[in-house]
Parts: sequence; structure tokens; C-alpha cells
Amino acid sequence: MRLRTDWRASVALVGTVLKYLSVPLVIPLVVALIYRDPVVPFVATIALTIAVGEGLERLSPEPDLDIREAMLFVAISWLAVAIVGAVPYVIAGWGTESTLAHPVNALFESMSGFTTTGATVLGEISLERHSHAIMMWRQLTQWLGGMGIIVLMVAILPEVAVSGAQLVESEAPGPELQKLTPRIAETARILWLVYFAFTVVYIAILYGLHLAGMAPNMGLYNAIAHGFTTLPTGGFSPEADSVAAFSAAVQWTAVPFMIIAGTNFALFWHVFSGEGHRFVRNSEFRAYITAIAGLTALLAGMLYVGTAPALAELGGVTEGVFENSLRQSAFQISSLLTSTGYATSDFVDWSSTGKIVLLFAMLVGGCAGSTGGGVKVVRWLIIFKVLRRELFTASHPEVVRPIRLGGNVVDEDAIRGVLGFTFMYLIIFAGATLLIALDVSRASAIANFSPLEAFSASLATIGNIGPGFGHLGPFGSYLDFPVPSKLLMIFLMWIGRLEIIPVLVLFTGGFWTR
Amino acid sequence: MRLRTDWRASVALVGTVLKYLSVPLVIPLVVALIYRDPVVPFVATIALTIAVGEGLERLSPEPDLDIREAMLFVAISWLAVAIVGAVPYVIAGWGTESTLAHPVNALFESMSGFTTTGATVLGEISLERHSHAIMMWRQLTQWLGGMGIIVLMVAILPEVAVSGAQLVESEAPGPELQKLTPRIAETARILWLVYFAFTVVYIAILYGLHLAGMAPNMGLYNAIAHGFTTLPTGGFSPEADSVAAFSAAVQWTAVPFMIIAGTNFALFWHVFSGEGHRFVRNSEFRAYITAIAGLTALLAGMLYVGTAPALAELGGVTEGVFENSLRQSAFQISSLLTSTGYATSDFVDWSSTGKIVLLFAMLVGGCAGSTGGGVKVVRWLIIFKVLRRELFTASHPEVVRPIRLGGNVVDEDAIRGVLGFTFMYLIIFAGATLLIALDVSRASAIANFSPLEAFSASLATIGNIGPGFGHLGPFGSYLDFPVPSKLLMIFLMWIGRLEIIPVLVLFTGGFWTR
Ligand SMILES: [K+]
Ligand SMILES: [K+]
Repeated sequence: MRLRTDWRASVALVGTVLKYLSVPLVIPLVVALIYRDPVVPFVATIALTIAVGEGLERLSPEPDLDIREAMLFVAISWLAVAIVGAVPYVIAGWGTESTLAHPVNALFESMSGFTTTGATVLGEISLERHSHAIMMWRQLTQWLGGMGIIVLMVAILPEVAVSGAQLVESEAPGPELQKLTPRIAETARILWLVYFAFTVVYIAILYGLHLAGMAPNMGLYNAIAHGFTTLPTGGFSPEADSVAAFSAAVQWTAVPFMIIAGTNFALFWHVFSGEGHRFVRNSEFRAYITAIAGLTALLAGMLYVGTAPALAELGGVTEGVFENSLRQSAFQISSLLTSTGYATSDFVDWSSTGKIVLLFAMLVGGCAGSTGGGVKVVRWLIIFKVLRRELFTASHPEVVRPIRLGGNVVDEDAIRGVLGFTFMYLIIFAGATLLIALDVSRASAIANFSPLEAFSASLATIGNIGPGFGHLGPFGSYLDFPVPSKLLMIFLMWIGRLEIIPVLVLFTGGFWTR
Repeated sequence: MRLRTDWRASVALVGTVLKYLSVPLVIPLVVALIYRDPVVPFVATIALTIAVGEGLERLSPEPDLDIREAMLFVAISWLAVAIVGAVPYVIAGWGTESTLAHPVNALFESMSGFTTTGATVLGEISLERHSHAIMMWRQLTQWLGGMGIIVLMVAILPEVAVSGAQLVESEAPGPELQKLTPRIAETARILWLVYFAFTVVYIAILYGLHLAGMAPNMGLYNAIAHGFTTLPTGGFSPEADSVAAFSAAVQWTAVPFMIIAGTNFALFWHVFSGEGHRFVRNSEFRAYITAIAGLTALLAGMLYVGTAPALAELGGVTEGVFENSLRQSAFQISSLLTSTGYATSDFVDWSSTGKIVLLFAMLVGGCAGSTGGGVKVVRWLIIFKVLRRELFTASHPEVVRPIRLGGNVVDEDAIRGVLGFTFMYLIIFAGATLLIALDVSRASAIANFSPLEAFSASLATIGNIGPGFGHLGPFGSYLDFPVPSKLLMIFLMWIGRLEIIPVLVLFTGGFWTR
């Protein structure tokens, strides 16, 4: 039986990706030299990436990717990078009490990094337990993951009908997110520039706050560490208390940058090109801002009247109940809706209703064309337009009414793709909830494991969000889950980040043969 | 502005329905005479139905219904019947401590009856607190609701694209569930006959068990009462402990009848016509039986190894752990999956994982063409086929592949309708969860109200299931909810029963004018 998919081409290109991975590995190596941490984990991994990369590249001298090879390429890329990225954790943890010495934990943390999920199995998040270099590598994996996502959405996702990316096209005709053309490299460069610029600005502001005395513990290390994890909507923090460890000024600063991270990066190009009006006219962006504002107002009101408690124990400077309510609300909603996953409050202790509001935010997701995960705003927008049309055609069966987005008609195939994707997302989320619950109860792994905990474990991983409720809250950890659950969640983070289809399709026979 | 929808025709026909409602009201009147209960509640309501019915009929002497008028008719019918059906509760409760003396509670109980939901706001379910006649009326409302559903799915739903009813057509070409034709009356009569026959058989078996000494407390009253609420997947019981009050023999007997109630009634016609092979070839039926068997096996295993506790306190004869596990599992899965809502165990006390398995059952729903509520099996079947197609076309974008059901191609419009309906269902369910949680926390109405309780309150009402988790468990009550939540849940039961669209469409401007 001859395979129709040229897997050698895909794997050879993965080799190139692995080779390039050696370059950013120099950053934690430099950090290790500065802080006199062990350098072996990074030197060994750099050698490994180059050796394996070179070897794989030889499989196909001039790899040429068609759609299928492209999907295979991205799926294997993320997996291979996550595996190699776990090596420094295992080497550094070897012989210590670090939870990352266990290969499954190391792979979990690495996949969580490169998929910008931010779910952690570090038992103790501290720079005493883990070296500065290892912690910076952990932060950096998210920033690299974000760069990968940008390539993914420019080059691959527009080829897959169920993605929302081709919808963005009709709204943002600047740097087009469109089919494979020679302009891909140019577009990717533009978006990378946006990503890089915001990262630098954010680090500068954080460190500036520190120098101005408004953020005592936000030194250069912490500023860079959070810079690496905000724009990719990552959410890893070297602080056990996440952003609650910092001042109110830092918390307020993070809010707009999380919102930027969840915005279609192509839109910023319009601003730089002097066409800022396109920005505010973009219907996905407007829906996104409306959702954030609406949920923030609702939650702030609840926090203010004391419905969601625990205000007294919140991190940051509690200047007043009003400011604090608004800040906690704006931060948590921006963080969970964009799938960043930072927290300034242990919302595990909030009221049921407060948690339900947060669950709503978690289900929305970022904009298409951003590094945000989840279902994504544009898909919900299309779904609501479809439902309005269904209601209309129920009493007007003779009328044919196209769905419009930003003035352009959306192709019915694309609509079917959006509905299909969202169902696939919800069904896998539900199925994984059941499997995780069965596994936890089989192993009696977590005491008083609630249905909400099971839901959130599934949603926070497939949605690349990070924290959930209960044991896996923002100040908690996924450490106590049994190994089968961890492997399942590694799978969920992987498929969630790649918009499901490019991975699942590999498990269908038709992909390989016909 | 002239309305395009002839509301007079719809309302006039509602008048006819109300007039006919006076006939079954004779049944509780007879029960009242037998048990020497007050007859005023029923005599007054009979007079009311005739008077109002006559009055409304005069709005339009020869009502002629087009699609819109038909939708308006069914929506108003269920509302009007629920309102009138609440009158006996209010009259009987007047001046007593009955919770049904409050009009909102009475309307809740009545809507819950006629929509065959089975959610209750009776504070104390007992024949000491409420008369035999009132309790029999409560049971009868569900049986009448079931009759209404049969007409609905024969005459109205096939007109609405999002319904699963037109899909049934391709699978069951016997008594067609199809467009408005003179055959409607004939088809409805056939299905009513099936419904009536199974009800009589079930009552006979229950009473036979009683006479044989295998069901001591299943006297004629109880046998009829449960006969009225099983085939319509209703779930009301005059016993506070639901079917846990009866012997294992009664519990085992109920299982196949609940499964029958959730089966497409048209299929039974084939059996009676000697074409039983069509039954087993029906793909929806096979998926339905597979889902019941699979979930039952999973849950029985969990109960057997003790994962879901509380076995010791179960109702019925505990002959052995194996038989008991299998019985509890088969009963609860059949009851919740078909949206009947009886219980033989207080699953509120089960483990988280046990509850998640039950939630899965609650999301499935009965078959199209049955009295079962929820999303319905045929829709999930279509959705899974659509997802398989999406995965295939992702790597074969050039291939056009139709969806088949029972050998026939399903129209793409129907597929879009199915996806649209299911999203509408899930989104309304989610939105109502939030509103109920906000209302409960606003009123501080229910202590320790959990997110799972909020989910289940919404799901159990829009899915016409009845019981949920926590306070609204199978042996619990919806009594403690604040009035706004109760009104919302009345709305959810109403739209859930009518497959959402025929009600929601009334709230769109386009329905009335264009
Ligand atoms: K994240
Ligand atoms: K029910």
C-alpha cells in the first residue's frame, strides 16, 4: 500500500524547526551563566536539537508541502518541540526533588508552555526550588509558542476550512491571512514585528514601574519573564501567586496587554499604516471588547456587593473596595477570556455565581489572528448570525439570506466549518471531562474532586487557558492528576492549540491513503 | 401597520383546544367523587375552559392555519393550557398550606405537567397533604401533554426546518411524519393508538404485579397514576420517593416502558404491520439503544465497585449488590436519557463521576417521533456524521460528500437546521444557567448553591427532564427558587417542549410583519 501523504517532507521540515530551536535555547544558557546555575541542561539540549534536526532534514532534501503534509508538519512540530523542550526539565530535575524529573510531568510542562496553555505541574513555584535558568526557559517556551502560532495562522490554518482564519481575511484586507503565496513570509514578518514590539514595550513599562518605585518586586528578571508570557496569552509566572504577587499598578498594566494579546494582530498593522478606523469597524474586535466590558461590569458589580467573596485576602494594594472590585474583575475576565490564565485572586474561593461568570469568559476565547485560544470570538459571532437566520427562515422558508461579516458574504462552506469546529471542540471537551473524572475516581487521586473541577480541567487544557477551579485553580497545580489524565491533557493542549482538525485528521485512514 | 400573521385564526383554534380540555377534566372530577375530595376545583375549571374556549373560537369562524399561524397556535396552546391547568391547583390550595396556592407555583407545576417535564414545586408530596383528585390531575396533565406532543410532531414540527422530525421521515416511511396533508389525522390516530395501548398494558402489568403480591403498595390508583406519567416521559409520581417507593419488580418493569416512551412511535407501527425488521435497521433506534446500554454498563460497573455510593440506602428490595447495581444503573440511565425523570436512588449523593455520567445521559434525549425531550438522538447522529465529514474534507477539499441516514441523503438545509437548533439549545441552556445563578445569589435563596445545581436546573427544565442535582434532586423540589427563576424555568420548559423555534420566532419582528 502506497501512502499518498509524503510524511518524509513533513518530518524533514520538523528537523529544520528543531535546528532553529537551538537558537532561543541560548537565552536560558545565558541566564544560567549570569546566575551561576547548571548549564548542562541547555548545552545538552542544544546539542540534541542540532543532531536530531540535522538527521531529520536528510529525510527529504527539498521538502515540498501540500495541504496534508502541512497539517502533518504542524502537528508533529508541536509534539517534537514539546518533547525536546522537556529535556532541560528532566536533566535539571534529575536526582532532585523537582516534580519535573518525571518525564510525563516534564512533557506536560513543556507542552503547556509551547501551546501557551500555562497549566503547571510544578509542585512548588519558586526560584529557590528551581533555577533562574529553568524558570526562564519555562517562560520562554510560551513566547516561542506564540511565534509558532503566528506562522500557523498565516500559513496553515487558512487551508483548513473549519478554521476561523479565512473569515478574518474578509475583515482585514491589509496583511492577508490567506492561501499559500510568496507573501506568507512577508505577512508573518509583519505580525512577528507587532508581537515583538508589544513584548518589548510591555517589558519596558513593567521595568519602568519598578524603577519608579511602583513595583518593588518587578525587577528585570520578572519583567522579562512576564513579557515572555503575556503577548502569547501564556500565563506562566515565576511567582507562585501569579500576578497577585505584584502591585496594583502592575495588575492594571497587564490588563490592556492581555487584551492586545487576544486581538487580531493584523489590525495593528492598520494602525501603523494610518488606517486606524478599520480597527474600530472590525466586527469581531467590537464583539470582543463588548464581551470583555460586559462580563467585567457584571463581575465587578458582584464583587462590589460582596457576592463573590475573598476580597480581603486579595493580592495587590487594596486601596478601596470599588477600585479593587473593578481591578479584580477586569483582570480575571481579560485573563480568562483571552486564555492568558494569569490571576490576581484565588477565584477558587469565589461564589458559585462568580465561577459561572468566569466559565463564560473561558468559553469565549480570543480573536482569530491572535495568540488567544478557545473557540474564538469570530466563531461565536458567526454562530449567533446563523441562529438569527434560522429564526428568520423558520417563518420565511422561501427567503435565502446570506451571512455577512464586515460587509462581505461568508461562504456557506466556511459557516459549516465553523459550526463543525465548535461542535468538535465542545464534544471533545465533554468527553475528556468524563474520562478525566473516571480516571481520577479510579485512582482516588484527588479528594472531593467536584464536577466543576473535572469540567475546568478539560476546558482549561483544550482551550489553552491554564488555570481552572479547585485543585487546579490559579494558585494550584495539575500535579495530583494520575498519569493517564496528564497524558490526555497533553493531548488536549496539543489539539486545542492547533485548532483540532490538523491533529485529528492524522488519525483518519483517509488522510494517509486516498 | 398590518400584521401578516393571522393571529385570530391561531387563537380561535386555541379556543377549541381549551374546550376539549374540559373532557379529561372529568377524570379528576370522578376521582374526587370516589375519594370524597372537593369537586369545586374541577367543576369550576370545566366551566372556565368551556366559557373561554367558546369565546376564543368566535375570533375566527373557520380558522385556516399557514406555517406562521401554526407556530403561533402551538406556542399559545401550551401556554393557555398550562394556565388553565393551574386553576384547580390554586382553587384547591386556597386557604390551605399547599405551596400550589401561590399562582406562580401552580403555573410552574402545571407547565411542568403539560410539557411532561416533571419538575415539582410541591413542598410535600403526599396524599395526606394533597387530595387524590388533585394528585391525579397532576399525573394526568403529563399524559395529556404527551398526546399534544404527538400532534405537534405530526402536524407542526415537520414544517420547521430545524426540527429533527423531517429526518425521521426518511427512516420510517410508514405513517409519515410529513407536511400538512389530509393524512395527518390518520397518522396522529395511529400514533395515539400506540401511545394508548402501551399505557393500558403498562397499567395492567403494574396492577398485575400488585395482585400477584409482588408490588404491595402499587394499588389501582398508583398503577394508573404511573401509567399516566411513563409513556409521556413525564416522571411525576404521587410518591415522595418516586419509584424508589416500590419493589424491585416494579422498578425493573418501568425500565423497558421508559425506553419505549423514548422510541420513535412510528416504528411500533411497523411491528404491528409485520415489518419488524425495519425497527432494528433504524439507525436512530440503534444509536439510542447503544447509548443506553453503554452508559448503563459504565454506571453499573461504577456502582458495583462502589465508586458511586449510597447503595445501602436505596429503595426497593436489595437482593444483591450485582442486581442492585444493574437495576439502579439501568433505571437512572433510562429515566434521564429519555427525559422521564423518575428515580430509584437519590443520585444527589452519588460521586462526582457518577453525576457526570448522569449529565451525559441528560444531554442525549429521546428519539425524534417520541415523547422524549432534549436534543434527541437523531440530531446527535447527524452531528457526528457532520464531524466525520469535516475531518474527511479537511484532507480532501475537492470531494463533496453527502450525509446519509438510513440510506437516504439528508438535505443540507436540514443539516444546517440541526446544527442551528442544537446550538440554540446549548446557548439558551448556558445563558439560563447564568441567569438562575445570578437570581439565586441575588436573593440568597438557596444555601451552598453549587454550579452543578445551576447547570442542572437549566438543563432539567429546557430538556423537559425534571430532576437535577442538589436541592432539585429526584427526591427534592424547585420550591426554594426565587420567583424570577421560576418564571424563567416555566419559559424554558415551554420552549424546550416546542423545540424552541416555534416559540422564539414569535419574539422576532419579522414573524409578525414581513
Ligand atoms: K494560557
Ligand atoms: K420528564
